[in-house]
Amino acid sequence: MRIAVVAPSCPLKREAEEAVTVIVEARGDCELAIHPQCFLSDGHFAGPDEARLEALREVMGDPSLDAVWFARGGYGSNRIAEAALADLPSAASAKTYMGYSDAGFLLAGLHKAGLDAVWGPMPQDVLRPGGERAIMRALDWLVRRDASALEPALDGPSMAFNLTVLSNLLGTSLEPDFTGIDLLIEEVSEHLYAMDRAMFHVTALPAIQKARRLRLGRVSDVLPNDPDFGADEAGIVEQWCARSGIPFGGRADIGHDAQNRVVPFRWRND
Amino acid sequence: MRIAVVAPSCPLKREAEEAVTVIVEARGDCELAIHPQCFLSDGHFAGPDEARLEALREVMGDPSLDAVWFARGGYGSNRIAEAALADLPSAASAKTYMGYSDAGFLLAGLHKAGLDAVWGPMPQDVLRPGGERAIMRALDWLVRRDASALEPALDGPSMAFNLTVLSNLLGTSLEPDFTGIDLLIEEVSEHLYAMDRAMFHVTALPAIQKARRLRLGRVSDVLPNDPDFGADEAGIVEQWCARSGIPFGGRADIGHDAQNRVVPFRWRND
Repeated sequence: MRIAVVAPSCPLKREAEEAVTVIVEARGDCELAIHPQCFLSDGHFAGPDEARLEALREVMGDPSLDAVWFARGGYGSNRIAEAALADLPSAASAKTYMGYSDAGFLLAGLHKAGLDAVWGPMPQDVLRPGGERAIMRALDWLVRRDASALEPALDGPSMAFNLTVLSNLLGTSLEPDFTGIDLLIEEVSEHLYAMDRAMFHVTALPAIQKARRLRLGRVSDVLPNDPDFGADEAGIVEQWCARSGIPFGGRADIGHDAQNRVVPFRWRND
Repeated sequence: MRIAVVAPSCPLKREAEEAVTVIVEARGDCELAIHPQCFLSDGHFAGPDEARLEALREVMGDPSLDAVWFARGGYGSNRIAEAALADLPSAASAKTYMGYSDAGFLLAGLHKAGLDAVWGPMPQDVLRPGGERAIMRALDWLVRRDASALEPALDGPSMAFNLTVLSNLLGTSLEPDFTGIDLLIEEVSEHLYAMDRAMFHVTALPAIQKARRLRLGRVSDVLPNDPDFGADEAGIVEQWCARSGIPFGGRADIGHDAQNRVVPFRWRND
């Protein structure tokens, strides 16, 4: 199995490339094609929009590649997502696409276009504490669809998103159909008041109210709230679920950490 | 003229109350009715949702009051906006409502309901450097529709919003009709990458693409971007305008500061 790595958002660190390469060579069941675009730098981004788009389109259209693995999050995939999805080459539909966080803009659009989009760890996660396990989990899914990599409570069609990313794609051309799915969300590096505001937005939308349930992953690196917000992350989500009539499905094993599990947007034989 | 002050988001500071009261007494052309709810505290908010809603509904329904002045921003008006707008009492439609920042959730819904919603300084602004001028400007508009209080380049129907607030109300029941209006935006205390993301979201929506022009107010207290984002606030906004086909109308004299001007959502004899 040949897996391309491209960076539609921010640059991949060289030490992450090296550590992931060691893991892949030790496994011996797959081959990484790390695109040089991953190391470009242009302000906030891994190269200008044009370079990130060109690299992504190149690997999507290459029939010798079985999967596209997004190098890391950060910010920027939304800037090229619509163009990446235009006039899809036939080779694009035979691949699996994996990432999370900012890559959610692409996952949403790829899934909407009928492609195999999967929430899961990314190469840069190798630098997290315990990050090797995250890389192994991602590859276990990409290479052999190992069910132990999956979020353990998945029992029907599901999608996973960073809450802020989800809030910022609703109403755009990237918005997928949430009807009947379990919607898993997580958050990182936000104030609780901003999380409450995003939950207001997301749960107020009729498109989201069609979901079967909403499940809450981890909320990490919460920024200070002065004074104390008055509710914790679970209280916030449960309350907006109650207000909007979306059933709350409990906690989910996803987040910005090495424990982050895999959530395929395509359900089994869909 | 009698002006009610209520706090749908965060509590008003006592020193702001005192300073604004001194200004109002010196003017002698209006009377403030500062609701005791302004000083309640419940976690992040000026009292629980029920108390903030009750105070707002009380002043909206009081025929002896000519205007409702939102005490300050922060976060929280979205949590009570829909309920505040349900079954409007007839006295509510004879009033002017002024505020900005988080109060934008209410302004949007009030304007959509046909009421006189106005972007403008709030009582807590008296604590900013030069804040007395902001208070005078707000009262000049509320009391005698003094045109010198207005954003100087208004030349047709306009609305003003904090960008993040706007992004979080799109698609909800509070969303007004943007057709043909000048849309003025400003931002405070965000990273430039988050501003870029919100501009992506806002300008991607067909409802916003119906605006006549987009104008950019001040972007203040910008949080660090590491590495440097690669574009400034004007570059970000001009680029998303160009991508979405919304004409960019230049800068606007609004922002989270004492210079913040008045933008009535209702255009002259509408």
